[in-house]
Amino acid sequence: MKTLALSKVYQLLEPGPVVLLTTARAGRANVMTMSWHMMVEFEPPLVACVVSNANHSFSALRATGECVIAIPARTLAPKVVKVGNASGRDIDKFAVFGMTAVPAERVAAPLVGECFANLECKVADAGIVRKYNLFVLEVLKAWIDPAQKNPKTIHHRGYGTFAVDGKMLKLKSKMR
Amino acid sequence: MKTLALSKVYQLLEPGPVVLLTTARAGRANVMTMSWHMMVEFEPPLVACVVSNANHSFSALRATGECVIAIPARTLAPKVVKVGNASGRDIDKFAVFGMTAVPAERVAAPLVGECFANLECKVADAGIVRKYNLFVLEVLKAWIDPAQKNPKTIHHRGYGTFAVDGKMLKLKSKMR
Repeated sequence: MKTLALSKVYQLLEPGPVVLLTTARAGRANVMTMSWHMMVEFEPPLVACVVSNANHSFSALRATGECVIAIPARTLAPKVVKVGNASGRDIDKFAVFGMTAVPAERVAAPLVGECFANLECKVADAGIVRKYNLFVLEVLKAWIDPAQKNPKTIHHRGYGTFAVDGKMLKLKSKMR
Repeated sequence: MKTLALSKVYQLLEPGPVVLLTTARAGRANVMTMSWHMMVEFEPPLVACVVSNANHSFSALRATGECVIAIPARTLAPKVVKVGNASGRDIDKFAVFGMTAVPAERVAAPLVGECFANLECKVADAGIVRKYNLFVLEVLKAWIDPAQKNPKTIHHRGYGTFAVDGKMLKLKSKMR
Protein backbone atom coordinates (compact mmCIF):
# COMPACT_ATOMS: atom_id res chain seq x y z
CA MET A 1 0.00 0.00 0.00
CA LYS A 2 1.10 3.53 -0.83
CA THR A 3 0.81 6.72 1.21
CA LEU A 4 -1.98 9.07 0.17
CA ALA A 5 -1.61 12.80 0.87
CA LEU A 6 -3.88 13.84 3.75
CA SER A 7 -5.19 16.71 1.61
CA LYS A 8 -6.87 14.12 -0.62
CA VAL A 9 -8.64 12.13 2.07
CA TYR A 10 -11.91 14.04 1.67
CA GLN A 11 -12.12 12.82 -1.93
CA LEU A 12 -12.52 9.29 -0.61
CA LEU A 13 -15.18 9.95 2.02
CA GLU A 14 -17.17 12.87 0.61
CA PRO A 15 -18.91 10.58 -1.94
CA GLY A 16 -20.45 8.67 0.98
CA PRO A 17 -19.24 5.09 0.47
CA VAL A 18 -19.95 2.26 2.88
CA VAL A 19 -16.78 1.80 4.94
CA LEU A 20 -15.38 -0.63 7.44
CA LEU A 21 -14.20 0.57 10.83
CA THR A 22 -11.59 -1.47 12.66
CA THR A 23 -10.56 -1.30 16.29
CA ALA A 24 -8.15 -3.25 18.47
CA ARG A 25 -8.45 -3.77 22.18
CA ALA A 26 -6.34 -6.00 24.40
CA GLY A 27 -4.72 -7.47 21.30
CA ARG A 28 -8.03 -8.41 19.72
CA ALA A 29 -9.05 -6.76 16.45
CA ASN A 30 -12.61 -6.15 15.38
CA VAL A 31 -14.31 -4.70 12.34
CA MET A 32 -17.75 -3.23 11.70
CA THR A 33 -19.64 -1.82 8.73
CA MET A 34 -20.47 1.87 8.78
CA SER A 35 -22.34 4.34 6.60
CA TRP A 36 -23.00 7.24 8.95
CA HIS A 37 -19.90 9.36 8.44
CA MET A 38 -19.02 12.72 6.88
CA MET A 39 -16.08 15.04 6.42
CA VAL A 40 -15.80 17.91 8.90
CA GLU A 41 -12.52 19.53 7.84
CA PHE A 42 -10.20 19.21 4.84
CA GLU A 43 -6.80 19.31 6.50
CA PRO A 44 -5.90 17.96 8.87
CA PRO A 45 -8.78 15.72 7.79
CA LEU A 46 -11.49 15.53 10.40
CA VAL A 47 -14.24 12.95 9.99
CA ALA A 48 -17.41 12.66 12.04
CA CYS A 49 -19.05 9.27 12.43
CA VAL A 50 -21.85 7.73 14.42
CA VAL A 51 -21.10 4.38 16.04
CA SER A 52 -24.08 3.01 17.90
CA ASN A 53 -23.39 2.15 21.51
CA ALA A 54 -25.15 -1.14 20.77
CA ASN A 55 -22.14 -2.07 18.59
CA HIS A 56 -19.27 -4.03 20.09
CA SER A 57 -16.86 -1.57 18.43
CA PHE A 58 -18.26 1.36 20.39
CA SER A 59 -16.55 0.55 23.66
CA ALA A 60 -13.25 -0.31 21.95
CA LEU A 61 -13.30 2.97 20.05
CA ARG A 62 -14.08 4.93 23.17
CA ALA A 63 -11.53 3.13 25.32
CA THR A 64 -8.60 3.17 22.87
CA GLY A 65 -9.36 6.38 20.97
CA GLU A 66 -8.09 4.76 17.79
CA CYS A 67 -9.54 3.15 14.68
CA VAL A 68 -9.01 2.59 10.98
CA ILE A 69 -11.55 3.51 8.32
CA ALA A 70 -11.14 1.09 5.43
CA ILE A 71 -12.92 1.57 2.11
CA PRO A 72 -14.05 -1.54 0.28
CA ALA A 73 -14.66 -1.77 -3.44
CA ARG A 74 -17.76 -3.37 -4.91
CA THR A 75 -16.18 -6.82 -5.07
CA LEU A 76 -16.03 -6.91 -1.27
CA ALA A 77 -19.75 -6.16 -0.87
CA PRO A 78 -20.74 -9.69 0.22
CA LYS A 79 -18.13 -9.61 3.00
CA VAL A 80 -19.13 -6.09 3.98
CA VAL A 81 -22.69 -7.31 4.54
CA LYS A 82 -21.49 -10.32 6.54
CA VAL A 83 -19.37 -8.03 8.71
CA GLY A 84 -22.40 -5.82 9.25
CA ASN A 85 -24.60 -8.72 10.26
CA ALA A 86 -22.23 -10.26 12.82
CA SER A 87 -20.88 -9.05 16.15
CA GLY A 88 -17.30 -9.11 17.40
CA ARG A 89 -18.78 -10.20 20.71
CA ASP A 90 -19.39 -13.62 19.20
CA ILE A 91 -16.71 -14.18 16.59
CA ASP A 92 -13.36 -13.02 15.22
CA LYS A 93 -14.70 -11.43 12.06
CA PHE A 94 -11.31 -11.17 10.35
CA ALA A 95 -10.82 -14.92 10.68
CA VAL A 96 -14.38 -16.02 10.00
CA PHE A 97 -14.86 -13.83 6.92
CA GLY A 98 -11.34 -14.25 5.56
CA MET A 99 -10.16 -10.68 5.82
CA THR A 100 -6.53 -9.68 6.37
CA ALA A 101 -5.63 -7.53 9.38
CA VAL A 102 -2.52 -5.61 8.33
CA PRO A 103 -0.54 -3.73 11.01
CA ALA A 104 -1.03 0.04 10.84
CA GLU A 105 1.70 2.60 11.34
CA ARG A 106 0.21 5.08 13.81
CA VAL A 107 -2.57 3.14 15.56
CA ALA A 108 -3.12 -0.31 17.06
CA ALA A 109 -6.26 -0.90 14.98
CA PRO A 110 -5.43 -2.87 11.81
CA LEU A 111 -5.74 -1.93 8.17
CA VAL A 112 -7.93 -4.19 6.06
CA GLY A 113 -5.68 -5.71 3.41
CA GLU A 114 -8.47 -6.22 0.90
CA CYS A 115 -9.65 -2.59 0.96
CA PHE A 116 -8.41 -0.10 -1.63
CA ALA A 117 -7.98 2.68 0.94
CA ASN A 118 -7.23 2.71 4.67
CA LEU A 119 -7.28 5.73 6.97
CA GLU A 120 -5.55 5.53 10.35
CA CYS A 121 -7.50 7.68 12.81
CA LYS A 122 -7.46 8.90 16.37
CA VAL A 123 -10.47 10.21 18.22
CA ALA A 124 -9.97 13.98 18.17
CA ASP A 125 -13.13 14.84 20.08
CA ALA A 126 -15.29 12.55 22.20
CA GLY A 127 -17.35 15.40 23.60
CA ILE A 128 -20.37 14.61 21.43
CA VAL A 129 -20.33 10.85 22.04
CA ARG A 130 -22.66 10.87 25.00
CA LYS A 131 -25.39 12.79 23.20
CA TYR A 132 -25.31 11.29 19.69
CA ASN A 133 -22.72 8.45 19.68
CA LEU A 134 -20.87 10.87 17.40
CA PHE A 135 -17.08 10.69 17.27
CA VAL A 136 -14.87 13.30 15.64
CA LEU A 137 -11.84 11.52 14.20
CA GLU A 138 -8.60 12.94 12.86
CA VAL A 139 -6.98 11.05 10.02
CA LEU A 140 -3.29 10.64 10.88
CA LYS A 141 -2.15 8.54 7.93
CA ALA A 142 -3.80 7.48 4.70
CA TRP A 143 -3.02 4.53 2.43
CA ILE A 144 -4.21 3.48 -0.99
CA ASP A 145 -3.64 0.25 -2.86
CA PRO A 146 -2.36 1.18 -6.32
CA ALA A 147 -3.13 -2.35 -7.52
CA GLN A 148 -6.85 -1.62 -7.32
CA LYS A 149 -7.52 0.59 -10.35
CA ASN A 150 -10.63 2.79 -10.42
CA PRO A 151 -12.40 0.95 -7.61
CA LYS A 152 -16.16 1.34 -7.55
CA THR A 153 -17.61 1.96 -4.10
CA ILE A 154 -20.98 0.94 -2.71
CA HIS A 155 -23.58 3.20 -1.12
CA HIS A 156 -26.16 1.74 1.23
CA ARG A 157 -29.84 2.49 0.60
CA GLY A 158 -31.15 0.33 3.43
CA TYR A 159 -31.92 -3.38 3.91
CA GLY A 160 -28.98 -4.70 1.89
CA THR A 161 -29.59 -2.59 -1.20
CA PHE A 162 -26.56 -0.72 -2.48
CA ALA A 163 -25.99 1.71 -5.31
CA VAL A 164 -22.70 0.88 -7.01
CA ASP A 165 -20.71 3.69 -8.61
CA GLY A 166 -21.51 3.96 -12.29
CA LYS A 167 -20.34 6.57 -14.75
CA MET A 168 -18.04 9.39 -13.77
CA LEU A 169 -19.17 12.91 -14.53
CA LYS A 170 -16.64 15.71 -14.86
CA LEU A 171 -17.99 19.24 -14.75
CA LYS A 172 -16.12 22.51 -14.69
CA SER A 173 -16.18 23.69 -11.09
CA LYS A 174 -14.42 26.06 -8.75
CA MET A 175 -15.32 23.85 -5.81
CA ARG A 176 -12.60 21.88 -4.09
CA MET B 1 -44.96 15.91 -4.47
CA LYS B 2 -45.95 13.12 -2.13
CA THR B 3 -45.27 12.66 1.57
CA LEU B 4 -42.49 10.21 2.42
CA ALA B 5 -42.58 8.44 5.80
CA LEU B 6 -39.96 9.89 8.14
CA SER B 7 -38.74 6.35 8.88
CA LYS B 8 -37.47 6.15 5.28
CA VAL B 9 -35.52 9.40 5.23
CA TYR B 10 -32.21 7.71 6.10
CA GLN B 11 -32.47 5.68 2.87
CA LEU B 12 -32.12 8.91 0.93
CA LEU B 13 -29.16 10.38 2.79
CA GLU B 14 -27.17 7.34 3.94
CA PRO B 15 -25.87 6.72 0.39
CA GLY B 16 -24.10 10.09 0.54
CA PRO B 17 -25.55 12.03 -2.41
CA VAL B 18 -24.74 15.63 -3.17
CA VAL B 19 -27.66 17.70 -1.88
CA LEU B 20 -28.90 21.25 -2.04
CA LEU B 21 -29.62 23.17 1.13
CA THR B 22 -32.12 26.01 0.99
CA THR B 23 -32.71 28.77 3.50
CA ALA B 24 -34.96 31.82 3.63
CA ARG B 25 -34.28 34.99 5.51
CA ALA B 26 -36.23 38.21 5.41
CA GLY B 27 -38.26 36.84 2.51
CA ARG B 28 -35.20 36.04 0.42
CA ALA B 29 -34.49 32.41 -0.45
CA ASN B 30 -31.04 31.02 -1.05
CA VAL B 31 -29.62 27.65 -2.02
CA MET B 32 -26.20 26.05 -1.65
CA THR B 33 -24.59 22.75 -2.64
CA MET B 34 -23.56 20.42 0.17
CA SER B 35 -21.82 17.07 0.49
CA TRP B 36 -20.77 17.04 4.12
CA HIS B 37 -23.77 15.46 5.80
CA MET B 38 -24.66 12.20 7.52
CA MET B 39 -27.48 10.51 9.36
CA VAL B 40 -27.33 10.64 13.16
CA GLU B 41 -30.61 8.97 14.12
CA PHE B 42 -33.28 6.99 12.25
CA GLU B 43 -36.46 8.41 13.76
CA PRO B 44 -37.16 11.13 14.29
CA PRO B 45 -34.55 11.55 11.56
CA LEU B 46 -31.56 13.55 12.73
CA VAL B 47 -29.02 14.71 10.17
CA ALA B 48 -25.66 16.30 10.87
CA CYS B 49 -24.17 18.66 8.31
CA VAL B 50 -21.25 21.02 8.04
CA VAL B 51 -21.99 24.43 6.54
CA SER B 52 -18.88 26.57 6.32
CA ASN B 53 -19.21 29.93 7.99
CA ALA B 54 -17.74 31.34 4.78
CA ASN B 55 -21.01 30.40 3.05
CA HIS B 56 -23.79 32.95 2.78
CA SER B 57 -26.23 30.24 3.92
CA PHE B 58 -24.48 29.83 7.25
CA SER B 59 -25.85 32.97 8.86
CA ALA B 60 -29.36 32.37 7.50
CA LEU B 61 -29.36 28.84 8.85
CA ARG B 62 -28.12 29.97 12.22
CA ALA B 63 -30.51 32.91 12.45
CA THR B 64 -33.67 31.15 11.28
CA GLY B 65 -32.97 27.61 12.50
CA GLU B 66 -34.67 26.24 9.39
CA CYS B 67 -33.69 24.77 6.05
CA VAL B 68 -34.65 22.30 3.37
CA ILE B 69 -32.37 19.53 2.15
CA ALA B 70 -33.24 18.84 -1.49
CA ILE B 71 -31.82 15.88 -3.37
CA PRO B 72 -31.08 16.37 -7.06
CA ALA B 73 -30.91 13.59 -9.62
CA ARG B 74 -28.09 13.31 -12.12
CA THR B 75 -29.87 15.43 -14.72
CA LEU B 76 -29.58 18.43 -12.40
CA ALA B 77 -25.81 18.08 -12.00
CA PRO B 78 -24.88 21.10 -14.16
CA LYS B 79 -27.17 23.34 -12.07
CA VAL B 80 -25.86 21.81 -8.84
CA VAL B 81 -22.34 22.82 -9.84
CA LYS B 82 -23.46 26.34 -10.78
CA VAL B 83 -25.21 26.68 -7.42
CA GLY B 84 -22.01 25.53 -5.71
CA ASN B 85 -19.87 28.02 -7.58
CA ALA B 86 -22.00 31.10 -6.90
CA SER B 87 -22.91 32.98 -3.75
CA GLY B 88 -26.31 34.17 -2.59
CA ARG B 89 -24.52 37.35 -1.55
CA ASP B 90 -24.27 38.30 -5.20
CA ILE B 91 -27.27 36.80 -6.95
CA ASP B 92 -30.69 35.18 -6.54
CA LYS B 93 -29.62 31.66 -7.43
CA PHE B 94 -33.16 30.36 -7.91
CA ALA B 95 -33.81 33.02 -10.55
CA VAL B 96 -30.41 32.99 -12.23
CA PHE B 97 -30.17 29.19 -12.51
CA GLY B 98 -33.84 28.61 -13.28
CA MET B 99 -34.81 26.62 -10.24
CA THR B 100 -38.29 26.61 -8.72
CA ALA B 101 -38.71 27.63 -5.08
CA VAL B 102 -41.83 25.78 -3.89
CA PRO B 103 -43.38 26.77 -0.55
CA ALA B 104 -42.72 24.23 2.19
CA GLU B 105 -45.24 23.16 4.82
CA ARG B 106 -43.34 23.41 8.08
CA VAL B 107 -40.50 25.85 7.37
CA ALA B 108 -39.97 29.14 5.57
CA ALA B 109 -37.11 27.74 3.47
CA PRO B 110 -38.40 26.59 0.08
CA LEU B 111 -38.46 23.15 -1.51
CA VAL B 112 -36.65 22.84 -4.82
CA GLY B 113 -39.26 21.86 -7.38
CA GLU B 114 -36.78 20.09 -9.67
CA CYS B 115 -35.41 17.78 -6.94
CA PHE B 116 -36.82 14.26 -6.50
CA ALA B 117 -36.81 14.54 -2.71
CA ASN B 118 -37.13 17.44 -0.28
CA LEU B 119 -36.66 17.33 3.49
CA GLU B 120 -38.00 20.14 5.64
CA CYS B 121 -35.67 20.58 8.61
CA LYS B 122 -35.24 22.57 11.78
CA VAL B 123 -31.96 23.00 13.62
CA ALA B 124 -32.28 20.61 16.56
CA ASP B 125 -28.88 21.36 18.07
CA ALA B 126 -26.63 24.34 17.38
CA GLY B 127 -24.26 23.51 20.23
CA ILE B 128 -21.54 22.16 17.91
CA VAL B 129 -21.72 25.01 15.39
CA ARG B 130 -19.08 27.16 17.01
CA LYS B 131 -16.46 24.41 17.04
CA TYR B 132 -17.03 22.66 13.69
CA ASN B 133 -19.75 24.58 11.80
CA LEU B 134 -21.72 21.39 12.44
CA PHE B 135 -25.50 21.62 12.65
CA VAL B 136 -27.73 18.82 13.89
CA LEU B 137 -31.01 18.99 11.97
CA GLU B 138 -34.29 17.24 12.59
CA VAL B 139 -36.32 16.33 9.54
CA LEU B 140 -39.91 17.45 10.17
CA LYS B 141 -41.48 16.56 6.84
CA ALA B 142 -40.26 14.63 3.81
CA TRP B 143 -41.44 14.79 0.21
CA ILE B 144 -40.72 12.74 -2.87
CA ASP B 145 -41.68 13.37 -6.47
CA PRO B 146 -43.28 10.17 -7.76
CA ALA B 147 -42.85 11.42 -11.34
CA GLN B 148 -39.09 10.93 -11.06
CA LYS B 149 -38.66 7.15 -11.32
CA ASN B 150 -35.46 5.54 -9.99
CA PRO B 151 -33.49 8.77 -9.87
CA LYS B 152 -29.73 8.37 -9.95
CA THR B 153 -27.86 10.55 -7.48
CA ILE B 154 -24.42 12.11 -7.79
CA HIS B 155 -21.53 11.76 -5.33
CA HIS B 156 -18.78 14.37 -5.30
CA ARG B 157 -15.18 13.21 -5.53
CA GLY B 158 -13.67 16.68 -5.59
CA TYR B 159 -13.05 19.34 -8.22
CA GLY B 160 -16.26 18.79 -10.17
CA THR B 161 -15.90 15.04 -10.53
CA PHE B 162 -18.96 13.03 -9.55
CA ALA B 163 -19.70 9.34 -9.37
CA VAL B 164 -23.20 8.73 -10.71
CA ASP B 165 -25.20 5.82 -9.31
CA GLY B 166 -24.81 2.77 -11.49
CA LYS B 167 -26.12 -0.73 -10.88
CA MET B 168 -28.13 -1.63 -7.82
CA LEU B 169 -26.90 -4.51 -5.71
CA LYS B 170 -29.31 -6.39 -3.46
CA LEU B 171 -27.76 -8.61 -0.81
CA LYS B 172 -29.44 -10.52 1.98
CA SER B 173 -28.91 -8.50 5.12
CA LYS B 174 -30.25 -8.10 8.62
CA MET B 175 -29.15 -4.48 8.63
CA ARG B 176 -31.75 -1.78 8.49
